[in-house]
Amino acid sequence: MRKASILLWITLAGCLYAAEPNNVEQWGIFELTLQGPAAGNPFIGIEFSAVFENAGRQFEPEGFYDGDGVFKIRFMPDAQGTWTYKTKSSRPELSGKEGQFICTAPKAGSRGPVRVRNQYHFAYADGTPYFPFGTTIYEWPFQTESLKKQTLETLKQSPFNKARFLLIPPYKEHYVTGPGKLERFPFVGSSKDNWDFSRFDPAYFRQLEWCVAQVRDLGVEADLIIFHPYDDGKWGFDRMDAATNERYLRYVIARFGAYRNVWWSLANENSFMKHLTDADWDRLFQIVQQRDPYAHLRSIHNADRIYDYNKPWVTHVSLQYYMAVRCLGISPMLRDMYQKPIIHDEINYEGNIERRWGNISGEEMVFRFWSAYIGGAYATHGDCFGPSEDPTWISIGGRLQGQSPARIAFLRKILESGPQEGIDPIDQHFENNIGGQAPKYYLIYLGREPIDAWEFRLPKKNLKEGMRFKAELIDTWNMQIEPVEKVFEIKQLNAYTFADKDGSKITLPQRPYMALRLQLSD
Amino acid sequence: MRKASILLWITLAGCLYAAEPNNVEQWGIFELTLQGPAAGNPFIGIEFSAVFENAGRQFEPEGFYDGDGVFKIRFMPDAQGTWTYKTKSSRPELSGKEGQFICTAPKAGSRGPVRVRNQYHFAYADGTPYFPFGTTIYEWPFQTESLKKQTLETLKQSPFNKARFLLIPPYKEHYVTGPGKLERFPFVGSSKDNWDFSRFDPAYFRQLEWCVAQVRDLGVEADLIIFHPYDDGKWGFDRMDAATNERYLRYVIARFGAYRNVWWSLANENSFMKHLTDADWDRLFQIVQQRDPYAHLRSIHNADRIYDYNKPWVTHVSLQYYMAVRCLGISPMLRDMYQKPIIHDEINYEGNIERRWGNISGEEMVFRFWSAYIGGAYATHGDCFGPSEDPTWISIGGRLQGQSPARIAFLRKILESGPQEGIDPIDQHFENNIGGQAPKYYLIYLGREPIDAWEFRLPKKNLKEGMRFKAELIDTWNMQIEPVEKVFEIKQLNAYTFADKDGSKITLPQRPYMALRLQLSD
Repeated sequence: MRKASILLWITLAGCLYAAEPNNVEQWGIFELTLQGPAAGNPFIGIEFSAVFENAGRQFEPEGFYDGDGVFKIRFMPDAQGTWTYKTKSSRPELSGKEGQFICTAPKAGSRGPVRVRNQYHFAYADGTPYFPFGTTIYEWPFQTESLKKQTLETLKQSPFNKARFLLIPPYKEHYVTGPGKLERFPFVGSSKDNWDFSRFDPAYFRQLEWCVAQVRDLGVEADLIIFHPYDDGKWGFDRMDAATNERYLRYVIARFGAYRNVWWSLANENSFMKHLTDADWDRLFQIVQQRDPYAHLRSIHNADRIYDYNKPWVTHVSLQYYMAVRCLGISPMLRDMYQKPIIHDEINYEGNIERRWGNISGEEMVFRFWSAYIGGAYATHGDCFGPSEDPTWISIGGRLQGQSPARIAFLRKILESGPQEGIDPIDQHFENNIGGQAPKYYLIYLGREPIDAWEFRLPKKNLKEGMRFKAELIDTWNMQIEPVEKVFEIKQLNAYTFADKDGSKITLPQRPYMALRLQLSD
Repeated sequence: MRKASILLWITLAGCLYAAEPNNVEQWGIFELTLQGPAAGNPFIGIEFSAVFENAGRQFEPEGFYDGDGVFKIRFMPDAQGTWTYKTKSSRPELSGKEGQFICTAPKAGSRGPVRVRNQYHFAYADGTPYFPFGTTIYEWPFQTESLKKQTLETLKQSPFNKARFLLIPPYKEHYVTGPGKLERFPFVGSSKDNWDFSRFDPAYFRQLEWCVAQVRDLGVEADLIIFHPYDDGKWGFDRMDAATNERYLRYVIARFGAYRNVWWSLANENSFMKHLTDADWDRLFQIVQQRDPYAHLRSIHNADRIYDYNKPWVTHVSLQYYMAVRCLGISPMLRDMYQKPIIHDEINYEGNIERRWGNISGEEMVFRFWSAYIGGAYATHGDCFGPSEDPTWISIGGRLQGQSPARIAFLRKILESGPQEGIDPIDQHFENNIGGQAPKYYLIYLGREPIDAWEFRLPKKNLKEGMRFKAELIDTWNMQIEPVEKVFEIKQLNAYTFADKDGSKITLPQRPYMALRLQLSD
């Protein structure tokens, strides 16, 4: 032990050129800062990375130029213990720098990055199930300090544990002329004609990093939208050439990759960027795959042409197709098509604006959430109240005004108190509204049309005669759960179905949006 | 002219070894017959093909061994004029045989193989639009002569222009023990223990060729199902090794490829063949792509795991997912996902058997058809009346008993008298029941729930104020079309919609399954 300490001291003495702390919590960020060349354009042509090693495993994140001659490498250690590192660079002053640090236990509540679990679901790296309940706050990073703080406060009180937002602002006139004129852009310059696409503005990215860290500290995953088409060529950020796109993408990965709560959303409505083909997107995905040492979740959000989510570099489906949640029974098909987790990442927004994507009712938003979750999928919320150009929440953040978040919180509680495997469809070719884990747990969603009674019938999967179930009536809109007095005992009805042995029904109130929860009795 | 005739005579003289006719109609079959080796096992290890040439274009179909020392090559010429050919073989007696033939005009009604047209639709090779109206007669080739003739007679009277059937019978006890004991199998032998998987039975394939030719002569495409899982290892045809599968597949292509009405369905419910991975299916598709010189349509029909129809060798989607047609609005999503024609090739069967896939009502079958076609997709019918083990039509053929075929004929007439481009969804992200070609033609399907009236409102695509429309009321179940007396003139209502300028509605009878047809007035 004493010998190890001495060795540690010697090594630390060898890396006094950097003042980084030598303890980093698991899934925190180790940051190495080096002085390097400031002359010329250090954003271009300098290869810079470091190999981090622990217990025989190696990771090699790229570094990035942070301006003023400062180069940084960020690293997220995924295991406790001693990590060593050694830099590599095409420039001698950045090359061969060695050191080590101790990775300590994570802080309470820190569970690591989210991964795919059991093919259709998610978990944190520590194994804790993660059930996505997303929301959309596209432009919140580009707002005033006070509005950003209000957004964070709202998020903290909300049911949402994933937020989709843009890394590049959409073009809006007032971002150029004020109010809310933007001072910083991803690139140096101030308009399409004088952007220097070869030079990033590090301060711009630092303010985005603050946003990612803030939502992380609220337990919210940051679904970062890297490219988007909402510029119409005015700034030109949506029409950059392949080399610029690639350089920008690598810079984003180098700066944000070490944040444990990052998900990569390659684009919003990608097919609206007409100059990029599916082959271009393939290449961008492959760059993320190669350059992100942590394998953060990767997807892309579609417009008219739907990217092939079957491709191996896509970790989950991030679909925009409202019809897929407007009726029941389609999410299971998407699971069978893509054999990956399905997130309905845009299902219209609850709101009051004239644009038709921004004015569905709270009831309809909640219906679409249940449609997704009952089918073994997930969904992302939006709240969109006027004015049309800058609606609150989905664009600028601020306050939530809709009626759906409380109901989504209610659904989240039901889901998180249910089977830790998550909800899987049961008999999805013939039943469009039954999810759960047979035989121990069923959610049955009864949708928009009130019915008088529900005959106690379940698909045969994993059932045996004599099993007994308790039932509860869930009012998904009024957020009430009421136990049914009877215990149901089942017998086989036919080749597909078990039913209550006495043919009992559950009487239902004449209200829409009811559901049932059935649980196997001990 | 005279000189050409002399040359022709010289060439013909050079190929007197074969007695094939020297005139073949376009998209007919030229068949070259050669004597070759009969000793050993001529099915194995003999490479045999011919290069056919016309106007600088070359095609190289493989030949096949037809038993008794006879080798054949079949070829479907796709252009009129003089074709030359020369054989290639690893055996000298089959190699270097040259000749030519004249390809003449096609017979009336012969339009060549069906191709994809305009990304989501189909046409014959001569350019005539082909709108698939499929049906399912899995085992009809394995029935008695009289039953086969009845099936053909039924097909002739039916609205169906595509038939799905198996190239290998499913295992059924009575096919072994009788009645209906099968005399012929794809391989020589009579049970799992003594099949010689290295030897095909040519007579077995000849009877299938008769079936393909018969339906061809009725104008029906033969959607040939090459592999299937309905054997459960009893004969073992569903568990053959990779080399046998490949040899069988090449034999099928060599024998059937020259039939112009052939579509390749790699399998029914492919994922139920557990020993084959998606990579195995990729390889089988690639073999078809390489060996079929005519590029017949290629797809595969799924069970629980849906093959990735995005793959480049798949020409169209052949989906089994009932929920996709049980509600409206999902076919357009499938188009956007796969960017290929969508055929819902199994949507349950109208019938009366206990199995739940075989007892939907005629009304429901017709609903599902309209759901598919209104969304710019196509569907395949099935008619399934007991007994369960050998239901008529979908299994053995015979007579149709359901109520849906007449209504499907009615739909077909509507479709074929509509725009020749076919039906495309209009504003599919927000409207789930409007298809057509804006602004000239709209079909609006009103589904299961009767409504009092339809407000005259259309999505803005291609519309201008002042356009005038005539309307007809369609009762899709009672097969009636009734003109609406009024002519509707439109004005813009909002950013998305045009409406009748006077806010007129179309009054509807209180019946389910109504539709509207709107056509731009001259």
